[in-house]
Amino acid sequence: MKNKAQILVKHPVGFPTKETWSLEESLIPELNSGEILIENHYISLDPAMRGWINNTRSYIPPVELNSVMRSGSVGKVIQVNGTTKFKIGDYVSGWGGVQLYSISDGEGYFKVDPNKASIPKYLGILGMPGMTAYFGILEVGKLKKNDVVLVSGAAGAVGSIVGQIAKLKGAFVIGIAGGKEKCDYLTDELGFDGAIDYKNESIQKGIKKHCPKGIDIYFDNVGGEILDDALIFLRRNARVVICGAISQYNSMEVQGPKNYLSLLVNRASMKGMVVFDYADRYQEAFENMTKWIKERKLKSNEDVYEGIDNFHETFLRLFSGKKLGKLVLKVIDDK
Amino acid sequence: MKNKAQILVKHPVGFPTKETWSLEESLIPELNSGEILIENHYISLDPAMRGWINNTRSYIPPVELNSVMRSGSVGKVIQVNGTTKFKIGDYVSGWGGVQLYSISDGEGYFKVDPNKASIPKYLGILGMPGMTAYFGILEVGKLKKNDVVLVSGAAGAVGSIVGQIAKLKGAFVIGIAGGKEKCDYLTDELGFDGAIDYKNESIQKGIKKHCPKGIDIYFDNVGGEILDDALIFLRRNARVVICGAISQYNSMEVQGPKNYLSLLVNRASMKGMVVFDYADRYQEAFENMTKWIKERKLKSNEDVYEGIDNFHETFLRLFSGKKLGKLVLKVIDDK
Repeated sequence: MKNKAQILVKHPVGFPTKETWSLEESLIPELNSGEILIENHYISLDPAMRGWINNTRSYIPPVELNSVMRSGSVGKVIQVNGTTKFKIGDYVSGWGGVQLYSISDGEGYFKVDPNKASIPKYLGILGMPGMTAYFGILEVGKLKKNDVVLVSGAAGAVGSIVGQIAKLKGAFVIGIAGGKEKCDYLTDELGFDGAIDYKNESIQKGIKKHCPKGIDIYFDNVGGEILDDALIFLRRNARVVICGAISQYNSMEVQGPKNYLSLLVNRASMKGMVVFDYADRYQEAFENMTKWIKERKLKSNEDVYEGIDNFHETFLRLFSGKKLGKLVLKVIDDK
Repeated sequence: MKNKAQILVKHPVGFPTKETWSLEESLIPELNSGEILIENHYISLDPAMRGWINNTRSYIPPVELNSVMRSGSVGKVIQVNGTTKFKIGDYVSGWGGVQLYSISDGEGYFKVDPNKASIPKYLGILGMPGMTAYFGILEVGKLKKNDVVLVSGAAGAVGSIVGQIAKLKGAFVIGIAGGKEKCDYLTDELGFDGAIDYKNESIQKGIKKHCPKGIDIYFDNVGGEILDDALIFLRRNARVVICGAISQYNSMEVQGPKNYLSLLVNRASMKGMVVFDYADRYQEAFENMTKWIKERKLKSNEDVYEGIDNFHETFLRLFSGKKLGKLVLKVIDDK
């Protein structure tokens, strides 16, 4: 039994290339006492991972060169040594990295229940993206009933949940996404009040049409031009949640929002968030989300690609937009 | 007795020019019943006035072409007709505009006491700039004891008060200003903990030196490069108060803060403010500020220039920085 891992070998400048990572095989070492061996079934692919491979400290240290690429993962415990937090057969989620097998003392892992939800959902709606959406819109955005909410990256792992939570709390929700298929998904499947197709229509005109009185919350996953367009339409005391800026992650220089003075004119605020700050409340979010899923008020899509060899190409789908909902890579079949 | 008024005749593109305004003489009409005639002694010159002469609606409507340039003013009631809010001899402050005499029904005017403070102070520390500083740093900035506070435009009408209020509430305060004279004024006269001379030193190096652990509040009056430099040094949960952006007011295109993702990394917020929102609490601020002035904890400088004919040249001092503290134009001597 051999491990295969995607090793970071080069900090990319601009878009990652095939030379950024190297797929390496290795023997799986013996477990030390207290350790578990996890067979990874699904690897989480998230926009934030692009930030972690810059050679600069951000909210967490960058991935070190010549180490396994950091990522969330979900899989099954297949071996234990001594007294351990988990037992053989447990499904667990944690920071397994982009590899087939991970060894851990269990720290940072939590047990997941494949009967409650299919296990890739624990990387999406019931994982970091779901938690981000929940605390981002409710806590950072301070969502109120009847708020007009605009979400970018709305067909993505975070945006799609943000919009649905806002809807079920009584807001009016418009999503921005790329292409007719995604926009139809937002309105027809997820119940958004409207969608703006940034690839085929003017965003400013779209906002004007759907939100004639302006917006109370803009939840930003993309940055760039779309952020600037949204700022124009802020209402008095509006909140802008800065969750991500996927349009900028591969840029040499970030495009600053030149309409930021709309914050002044409209007494609005722009606030950044990192989901880890809410770790002590994940359980609350998890329970609410599971309940809403059960009540069919909350839906999610996991877009599954296969093969650890295909990590690089699949990862780039995050930036080309060629995926719907949560992007995951299936690396080992659960037998 | 004739009036002289600076009339807005052209919306400027970029810097205002001599052609932006026209100085016009007119006869003073008879007062209607309930009206007062005010002899304006001092005209307030404020950066915000640049925004009011763009042909776009902001937080208040723009100054209409062929009308008197809007401004704050302080002067003396010299004539009344019928029952009026004020009596002859009262000193009053309000929106008199850039002219020698104003007629008003008293709406928006308030009485000032020349024995409590010299009357130009009612346009500065005891007027809008003072109120802006007070609510900006305490309410919007949510100042806490021991916060590290960085203020730009620190020798200006608002910045100088922001820094002093922060100091007397127990913060560590660094100001950014242009030139040695202003920087010495901040540290030697106003008690700032340090000053960065943006004309002669690197702002980033200056912040690093004075605030090695980063900043909790950045109070921004200037925008542009300085805002971008400050964003780099935000601490966790920092607050950026967007009060103004004087470096950008004459630009064709505003420079957006390209380091805005520091808000995300540091869970920081950037919030805009307009002082008018705090009108129902001006009295509270006024009383505290008067007390602090009396206790010599709060100082201010009014930089007085003379002559309604010199309005244009004096106004431009706001943007060249050739003034210290609150810029006012004396237009009629109090005899």
